[in-house]
Amino acid sequence: MTAVANPLHILEDLRSVLQDKVDADAHRLRAFTADRSGHRSAGPPLAVVYPRSVEDVQAVCRIASATGTPIVTRGAGTGLAGGAIAGPGEIALSMRDMDQILEISVANHLAVVQPGVLNGDLNRTLAEFGLWWAPDPASKDISTVGGNVAMNAGGLLCAKYGVTREAVLALKVVLADGRLISVGHRTVKGVTGYDLCALMIGSEGTLGIIVECTLKLLPVVTGEIATIGAFFDSVESAAEASSAVTRNGHVPAIMELMDRRTLECVGRYTGQDLVGQGSAYLLIQCDGQGAVETAARITDLVRAAGGRAETTVDPAESERLLDLRRKAFPAMETLGTVLVEDIAVPRDRLSDAFAAVRDLEERYGVVIPTACHAGDGNLHPTFVFEGDAAPPEVWAAAGELFSKALALGGTLTGEHGIGVLKRAWLADELGPDQYDLQRQIKAVFDPANLLNPGKVFG
Amino acid sequence: MTAVANPLHILEDLRSVLQDKVDADAHRLRAFTADRSGHRSAGPPLAVVYPRSVEDVQAVCRIASATGTPIVTRGAGTGLAGGAIAGPGEIALSMRDMDQILEISVANHLAVVQPGVLNGDLNRTLAEFGLWWAPDPASKDISTVGGNVAMNAGGLLCAKYGVTREAVLALKVVLADGRLISVGHRTVKGVTGYDLCALMIGSEGTLGIIVECTLKLLPVVTGEIATIGAFFDSVESAAEASSAVTRNGHVPAIMELMDRRTLECVGRYTGQDLVGQGSAYLLIQCDGQGAVETAARITDLVRAAGGRAETTVDPAESERLLDLRRKAFPAMETLGTVLVEDIAVPRDRLSDAFAAVRDLEERYGVVIPTACHAGDGNLHPTFVFEGDAAPPEVWAAAGELFSKALALGGTLTGEHGIGVLKRAWLADELGPDQYDLQRQIKAVFDPANLLNPGKVFG
Repeated sequence: MTAVANPLHILEDLRSVLQDKVDADAHRLRAFTADRSGHRSAGPPLAVVYPRSVEDVQAVCRIASATGTPIVTRGAGTGLAGGAIAGPGEIALSMRDMDQILEISVANHLAVVQPGVLNGDLNRTLAEFGLWWAPDPASKDISTVGGNVAMNAGGLLCAKYGVTREAVLALKVVLADGRLISVGHRTVKGVTGYDLCALMIGSEGTLGIIVECTLKLLPVVTGEIATIGAFFDSVESAAEASSAVTRNGHVPAIMELMDRRTLECVGRYTGQDLVGQGSAYLLIQCDGQGAVETAARITDLVRAAGGRAETTVDPAESERLLDLRRKAFPAMETLGTVLVEDIAVPRDRLSDAFAAVRDLEERYGVVIPTACHAGDGNLHPTFVFEGDAAPPEVWAAAGELFSKALALGGTLTGEHGIGVLKRAWLADELGPDQYDLQRQIKAVFDPANLLNPGKVFG
Repeated sequence: MTAVANPLHILEDLRSVLQDKVDADAHRLRAFTADRSGHRSAGPPLAVVYPRSVEDVQAVCRIASATGTPIVTRGAGTGLAGGAIAGPGEIALSMRDMDQILEISVANHLAVVQPGVLNGDLNRTLAEFGLWWAPDPASKDISTVGGNVAMNAGGLLCAKYGVTREAVLALKVVLADGRLISVGHRTVKGVTGYDLCALMIGSEGTLGIIVECTLKLLPVVTGEIATIGAFFDSVESAAEASSAVTRNGHVPAIMELMDRRTLECVGRYTGQDLVGQGSAYLLIQCDGQGAVETAARITDLVRAAGGRAETTVDPAESERLLDLRRKAFPAMETLGTVLVEDIAVPRDRLSDAFAAVRDLEERYGVVIPTACHAGDGNLHPTFVFEGDAAPPEVWAAAGELFSKALALGGTLTGEHGIGVLKRAWLADELGPDQYDLQRQIKAVFDPANLLNPGKVFG
């Protein structure tokens, strides 16, 4: 273990090599203490560095290793678990300026990009080539590809189009000591040794620094899109409808469910009477060949489960239906401070998960509107409270929620990651033996514990 | 490190705990010295154990750990890289009797199975539920799910339906010391800690023993299937046709290419004049909604590239076209002993890869018929020779082939794995730093190097 060096000397070292890519302005550093989780680090990092090349990243790592200085890699700071917040004595490594698309290969359905490119910007460029990178987190217009990869980002389309892991072919990664490795393959298939590319995806900046991503692309989906919106009398019947869709062999692109509390929020926010129309809302979208026929069959299933369904292929009308779902979080944020939770359960346990949320609301006296990616069983119970920090009863209720998710055969985080917010519960899900293995793997990649220390593991 | 115990004592220990699940019959043990790679271990293992439960596997591991005895886990022995061959002083652990389907959940599109169930048997059962496990190696009727997972098996359908990694949700794994861990999630999404489930997939029995698999299922594909078969004057024009298909945004279920040498073999084997019809054959199959319209558009592309295409939706005719491809390896095996190689290259480098094979044939005076999963750039150059063991010029040519694959941006194994056959080249692809990391990961899981020692790593 290297002795911790004087912060001023570290800053000098950084400036001597990286010059104007280093910023230590106290005011600007404040931004790096937070992300979208509501969590803040204890104070600003010692500097933020904006590398422009792989060599820059390697140089930062060498200085960090030589001085025992932690590095917190950061994309756009849109994380919801505190995984990219930097604190005193740490270097914030912003990938903002490494935002180039290096290659688009139509012949190979792949793109090579730097990690700082925004998901939305990439997809706008790819669309000109008839291609598409499928990961679709709600933050896609403002979040980076590197951040999506580091978190194994999810989104609305995962049941049909997979999670980020399925959309990455290869990565270039700088290790804590500055060495550069290439993991994965430029090919569709490849089985040489252990899958370190998959290991890196979702590792939240704790194993290495992603400096280049080779992405697997899909042809853009063409043809008509059919959208179904349906109000139900209860969240149970809406959950049953979504379950019927899956059970009958349909895999829609989007299948979203909002509970009564969420409808209250969205109704108030948009000036509509939504709860007058039902206590739950199910939104389904079918795309690709045969979308209209499939939507007709799904509409029958939704109606059979008690849904008052409207189905449309009109783009504007479709947007109107989708917009109800998009407004969910902005609407919740008007109620107070929000802690967005992220459990996932097997798809046939959705009703149980919603019942657990309602039970927590009653017992803890907290408000928890819950929207859900019903197609993949991923719920976002959103704890609403006053003030900056979540009060103890919110954490107690969240802890119970995680336990319930595990008891239902699920997970405490479907797509947001562990960061600092869920460290306390990680071992509950992994079990002590796997937790220990994971810590040893961390030590293999980063023996001095310099990469995002204190994140993921407690 | 435990001192190596007397083999007779190890056998006694195994028998005292596992009784009739232990077989040490010298004649029957011979079968465990080989797989389908043509490679043999130095001699029979000390015993084969047929566990019937997770507890049985744990008991074997505890005895192995206490006595320093290596364990070679084995599915059906259909591997093509020598990954499951057992030698003197080793325990062969056959998963043959752990072949139960434990659960099929139509609501969650998942199945939980023991590792010894055959892929084909599983899929026959799943079909009754309208479900399907997509991994489709050529060996599927005789290979086990556990083996498919341990090798991250590929097959014909990967460009459209993904490799095995995309079809596994969770695994139960017994570690070398007998501890049991659960990795992955029963849910579609899940991002708690590192993705040890993906790390285990393709680890070739070197990290742990897979004792239960939770598989991600797809609804069975319904509707008409359209098949296109096309002869070309050159392998370059056939490769260009397949490239045009991909470039134009089509992702057929199957896209296979056979070169002139392969057509000679298959023609001789089936009594047809195939080389009279062309020097390369491209086989394409479209399934799912819109298959017939898609096939019509693909047929146009194939013809534009010079292919003499016939297109059919008749199942019997379709079978006849597919059968040409299926006969490729049986036909090659009539020529002599075969070493089936397995490089993959980016899809637009197929022509270069075929040219490299032709060049090797000329320079080394060896015969290398080559069939190819053109949809994902995975070629099987098949070295044909006399006698049991590949002569030096075959290995020299194979070594050059691997280097060429890497130079083309590809990999030395698309789907067969490293086993013992490609150990010598693994570091060339991974680079020294990643190779070192992989060995350290192996040491984290298996510090005494008891799980499939000598495989993958040299």
